[in-house]
Amino acid sequence: MDKTKNFSEWYSEITKQAGLCDLRYNVKGFVVFMPWSVSSLKKMYSLFERELEATGHKPALFPALIPEENFLKEKEHVEGFAPEVFWVTEAGGEKLEQKLAMRPTSETAMYKMYSLWIQGVSDLPLKIYQSCQVWRHETKATRPFIRSREFHWIEAHDVFATQKEAEDQVKQDMNTTEKVMHKTLGVPFIYFQRPEWDKFAGAVHTYGADSLMPDGRTIQQPSTHLLGQNFAKPFNVSFTNEKGEKDYCWQTCYGPAISRIYASVISVHGDNKGLILPFQIAPLQVVVVPVQKKGFEKKIGEKAREIAEKLCGHGFLAEADESNATPGFKYNYWEMKGVPLRVEVGARELESKEFVLARRDTGEKMKVAENDLPKKVGEFGEALSENLRKRADEWFSKQVHSANSMDELGEQLDKGGFVKVPLCSVEMSGHNCADEIKSKTTGDVRGTRFHPEEKPAAGAKCIACGKPAKELVYVARQY
Amino acid sequence: MDKTKNFSEWYSEITKQAGLCDLRYNVKGFVVFMPWSVSSLKKMYSLFERELEATGHKPALFPALIPEENFLKEKEHVEGFAPEVFWVTEAGGEKLEQKLAMRPTSETAMYKMYSLWIQGVSDLPLKIYQSCQVWRHETKATRPFIRSREFHWIEAHDVFATQKEAEDQVKQDMNTTEKVMHKTLGVPFIYFQRPEWDKFAGAVHTYGADSLMPDGRTIQQPSTHLLGQNFAKPFNVSFTNEKGEKDYCWQTCYGPAISRIYASVISVHGDNKGLILPFQIAPLQVVVVPVQKKGFEKKIGEKAREIAEKLCGHGFLAEADESNATPGFKYNYWEMKGVPLRVEVGARELESKEFVLARRDTGEKMKVAENDLPKKVGEFGEALSENLRKRADEWFSKQVHSANSMDELGEQLDKGGFVKVPLCSVEMSGHNCADEIKSKTTGDVRGTRFHPEEKPAAGAKCIACGKPAKELVYVARQY
Repeated sequence: MDKTKNFSEWYSEITKQAGLCDLRYNVKGFVVFMPWSVSSLKKMYSLFERELEATGHKPALFPALIPEENFLKEKEHVEGFAPEVFWVTEAGGEKLEQKLAMRPTSETAMYKMYSLWIQGVSDLPLKIYQSCQVWRHETKATRPFIRSREFHWIEAHDVFATQKEAEDQVKQDMNTTEKVMHKTLGVPFIYFQRPEWDKFAGAVHTYGADSLMPDGRTIQQPSTHLLGQNFAKPFNVSFTNEKGEKDYCWQTCYGPAISRIYASVISVHGDNKGLILPFQIAPLQVVVVPVQKKGFEKKIGEKAREIAEKLCGHGFLAEADESNATPGFKYNYWEMKGVPLRVEVGARELESKEFVLARRDTGEKMKVAENDLPKKVGEFGEALSENLRKRADEWFSKQVHSANSMDELGEQLDKGGFVKVPLCSVEMSGHNCADEIKSKTTGDVRGTRFHPEEKPAAGAKCIACGKPAKELVYVARQY
Repeated sequence: MDKTKNFSEWYSEITKQAGLCDLRYNVKGFVVFMPWSVSSLKKMYSLFERELEATGHKPALFPALIPEENFLKEKEHVEGFAPEVFWVTEAGGEKLEQKLAMRPTSETAMYKMYSLWIQGVSDLPLKIYQSCQVWRHETKATRPFIRSREFHWIEAHDVFATQKEAEDQVKQDMNTTEKVMHKTLGVPFIYFQRPEWDKFAGAVHTYGADSLMPDGRTIQQPSTHLLGQNFAKPFNVSFTNEKGEKDYCWQTCYGPAISRIYASVISVHGDNKGLILPFQIAPLQVVVVPVQKKGFEKKIGEKAREIAEKLCGHGFLAEADESNATPGFKYNYWEMKGVPLRVEVGARELESKEFVLARRDTGEKMKVAENDLPKKVGEFGEALSENLRKRADEWFSKQVHSANSMDELGEQLDKGGFVKVPLCSVEMSGHNCADEIKSKTTGDVRGTRFHPEEKPAAGAKCIACGKPAKELVYVARQY
């Protein structure tokens, strides 16, 4: 498996070998997520949920089925999503009077209820999230975790009395992405304001966190949308303001797709030996491997179990691998699975009471006295996660290039990553130029950088139409 | 709200007043679960998941959609569930070639994959759970949390090489129910082996945990099913045994419906003031109420916040209620919401540095020095949960009666609870007698007690047909 030479093959191989998913389920575009990935997905859910709750969000659970009438209320939204909907038309042996959509996203399920819940300013802000699955009949090629017809995400839907608060929420959502996806999981990204033609259906503005895969293609991670009053009006999400007048609310929504973030985590950090999982989300943080020697079998086995139990007692996920395989086989196996740390227990260690602690990311080994193991495991675990992030940041920082012509853009895109180019506009008027870029270079205009704001050099011309460039946009080939 | 006099009204009122759910969602039988209930549901999920993982289960996520062909494989199963299925027939703007069932339960999604995963004894046992929603087009009247067309559960599906291991698993599942639902959440129950005519569709035996509602009607809580080889054969879940021969596996499944258990928790423990939530699942464990006095507003507010923060620092869910309402209003409000503990902060307390700590279940109040608050909160919280369980156990133990004739059974059922009666048989041959009991008394035969085993007195006659009674069964009116 060579990750850098053939990432696509590496990805297919590792998702299979490490037991992350099974593609043989007999509905096209649907996969089975297996224990090794689901254990991590659950921890990732918790990380995001904790952060959302710390910023005032409360959990709720809305129905998975949305009546067609709700769905039809916001024109742009229905146009955007209708082609992708799975429809329930029969139940209990009878044809339904009204078709029910399996939620592709929950705006139209939630906002009708919001209109009942919100009366006055005292009901605001309303900040609700739900952790759930959504279903979209994707026509693009599906890849496990990256894109499938069923995926697992969190959607947060917030409502405010003022535009300013909604705009601030967008920034808070970006900060949540930074804290969890970058700081904790080590996946770097850039937030772009999407061009007008690439917004979420029904949004005023869409901000997408674009990360990169090892093959240099970009992948959209959590996006946050300023909905303005676009949904508030058709769904009548309104309140009586201080003057006693009816006012429409200002809304935002934010959607971290947990299964997709997992795709980035394993792709960015993995190497040719397999996965490398950040310490915080590893299903198993420390594997204890007995290195057997004739005559010491029982003692070595006991000590391995004892160490694993001790680490568990300190809150770590640890396990002794007492299977019949050779130590070498076990090392390779658990390295392939991405377990962050390994403790080796052999006859010599029984005597010296010092055990080898090995790190998955650097291969570094260290002798640690038995009593120091819990402390060192904590330190090494943290260091590993930090190193993964640092490594990813270094690589990511080299993936932003510039170009001033279509040819140059094509050349730069072949190297992978983002390429900054001047564009006439990110309003609808620039759409033709983006289409031309796409057809000539297979690159997509991802939008303008949110922070820090960037503008084209004075006098720069749009690389497609040659008119004065109002914007500096990032182009990348995308997943 | 009088819980004992009119439980049904109490239940409707409290689910609304405490903000547990909203019934106004515009799909029949579907409700919106709101933050106050969802926070507890999430904690309940964790309790069950932790216990399942401690007994060797791993999490997975299977698709929500099941192709009709899978569904048709096990004859009894399809007969049992087909009338309740929601069918997806259109997607992406086109009619599907094959209808897809929204999972009513996942046997037919999972076992087809199991047949690919299991080859030899080294693949066994396989113990997988998933936390998900299921959809059933119920024809019975729906009630929030108790019965709706979408509910939230865990399903564990286990596979073994031998019948004995499968039978042991059934007992382990019962023990999981005992640990979480009874020991932690304080809801008592009895496990019954269901009569032949009331088994899970496709099971060899079904064991249901029957709890009681305050109106004396029974409600089925987690059931565990011995599937034997009934699914293994049509789905080819098999392995090569030590002799090199193909053998079919032995299977079990277990399904705690988290939203339904929540219905029992709030119903069993609540009182006329509202909810009383066990300490472990309360969204807010301690509310700190400032009792304002002129001239001390700022200091009292600060102290209330300080105490709440301190308790949060000790891992408790605590909050100061600084709204404008009167202390009396706040007491009532948080008592109605079921918050286990309250700390009162007034001017006098500022000086004495002793604060009133009040318990929701007993109303008991105690003065606690500021520094002792975290310790006492922990103790009181635990004591509250224990008391809830003890109270429920005492009440439950008085709800088991006996009868030896149809008339007597009717009279006893009017008092509520379970009534033991002799029945000719729990094989299919006893079905007519159960029907007669149902039509004459509106009572349902719940089955025979699993542990301890009970038999009718020598010479006892079936209360319906008068033939010699082989079984002592429990009858109850049911939800």
